[in-house]
Amino acid sequence: MAAEHLETVLRSATKEVVIGHDRRFCLIGERINPTGRRIFQEQLREGDMSAIERDVKAQVEGGADVLDVNMGVPLTDEPELLARAIKLVQSLTDLPICIDSSVVEALEAGLAVYEGRALVNSVTAEDDRLELILPLVKKYDAAIIALPNDHDEIPMEVEKRVDLTRKIVEVATKDYGIAAADIVIDPLAMPIGADTTTSLVTLETMRRIRDEFGVNMTCGASNTSFGMPDRHTLGAAWLPMAMTAGLTSAIMDTRTPQIVEAVKAADVFLNHDEWGMAWIAAHRAKAAESA
Amino acid sequence: MAAEHLETVLRSATKEVVIGHDRRFCLIGERINPTGRRIFQEQLREGDMSAIERDVKAQVEGGADVLDVNMGVPLTDEPELLARAIKLVQSLTDLPICIDSSVVEALEAGLAVYEGRALVNSVTAEDDRLELILPLVKKYDAAIIALPNDHDEIPMEVEKRVDLTRKIVEVATKDYGIAAADIVIDPLAMPIGADTTTSLVTLETMRRIRDEFGVNMTCGASNTSFGMPDRHTLGAAWLPMAMTAGLTSAIMDTRTPQIVEAVKAADVFLNHDEWGMAWIAAHRAKAAESA
Repeated sequence: MAAEHLETVLRSATKEVVIGHDRRFCLIGERINPTGRRIFQEQLREGDMSAIERDVKAQVEGGADVLDVNMGVPLTDEPELLARAIKLVQSLTDLPICIDSSVVEALEAGLAVYEGRALVNSVTAEDDRLELILPLVKKYDAAIIALPNDHDEIPMEVEKRVDLTRKIVEVATKDYGIAAADIVIDPLAMPIGADTTTSLVTLETMRRIRDEFGVNMTCGASNTSFGMPDRHTLGAAWLPMAMTAGLTSAIMDTRTPQIVEAVKAADVFLNHDEWGMAWIAAHRAKAAESA
Repeated sequence: MAAEHLETVLRSATKEVVIGHDRRFCLIGERINPTGRRIFQEQLREGDMSAIERDVKAQVEGGADVLDVNMGVPLTDEPELLARAIKLVQSLTDLPICIDSSVVEALEAGLAVYEGRALVNSVTAEDDRLELILPLVKKYDAAIIALPNDHDEIPMEVEKRVDLTRKIVEVATKDYGIAAADIVIDPLAMPIGADTTTSLVTLETMRRIRDEFGVNMTCGASNTSFGMPDRHTLGAAWLPMAMTAGLTSAIMDTRTPQIVEAVKAADVFLNHDEWGMAWIAAHRAKAAESA
């Protein structure tokens, strides 16, 4: 029997967003992140956060429901930088935030200044990571993105990913009193260009995780098309496929209408947009704009 | 345990096309059909078949693997017209043909002149239709599209559609000696605009039919978006979703690149395009064209 579908509640100071299998797909805007952006990194090192304002505006306009904020700049005080960035983003938008760092101290600094119920990005299945990060998630009443991999190896077997998901869910719920509803699993979507068998593993992992645990799932939407030509068309096919298999949110750049619209279309077919009202309204708004 | 995946082999005089769960999606070009085309109907009544030449060319250029040919023009001799059209289409292309009519005599006239192994479109689960059409399928060694509905009612329950599929497969294999591999089920994709719960039924029907019978499936790809705005974006999301659930071919207008490319992208993610070679080659060809 399939597990009950769980709902993950996120909040800013004034706004609630719920991720769920029977709801519209949750778009987590990914752009507030200096990775691979040299100029943005330099600006941040000099304390210039003006790019964040533009990025927030663009992601919100693109239709983001939540904003991922990452301040991983080498040679900076990441906890301080992330706390400042989160305060700034909260002043610019009422969307809930996904606090993104591999540095535990930065996660804590971010959580400490965040007003609401954050999503923490992320933890893996390794004992030492779970021990460091889950107490923070509990302390700040947050939700957590968890990746079913350990050590440096990303498991290529569905069963292994399901086993690691089970471990994470059991440790989080039993040892730390975190609700399963607050665990968002990243089923590890890998670049299709490196190995065309990989997405079948990910899709099957999604089905298994949905049916066995009922938890929500997210993934980095652009990972799958990395290194391939015409990435937007690949992304616009991948997300509807993943949604069919149980993906309920994605960390993605909402500035790409082709991908955002593919998600909205898939929401219609999954009966997450009753009577297609949102689809029809969006079309009318576009038609009015261009008239 | 999931059923073995079956392969449907179609042939023209010189070319073979195989539909299968572990192969690239099969595009059945749908445009050689006068339904809803007043001028084309008038031309056909006057014996003018020049439009067919244009339609064949456009569907082939769009990437069709098989061509659906329907000559359902009121107040004509449909068997004679269909036979003529099939002879003409065979002279224009080496793609296999899907012979499409609700008139049994027209199907037989088409089969009689067809050189190769045709796909017949279609039969329903009603006893009298099965008794009329399956002997023809056997006699001419064709494959058959079958719809799991009877009387006038399209069943809205997954279980009923699966039951009617079972009936069709059993009657065809046991009573008429037709191989299950030669039965292509149309799981009945309905317009989403009329009822947003309908595609969940269709997707689940597809999964069940794939796992229980292993047969191939097809559907009218544009049905689902009927009456909705931005139909191409809906179609481009629907087919990857349906492919994830087990759809192996669709009857569609290949003149819409957005939908054709969505199918090709989904083929990459389903590992039907090893190393993404076809995807990359198509991109290079486009880049060379525009250079």
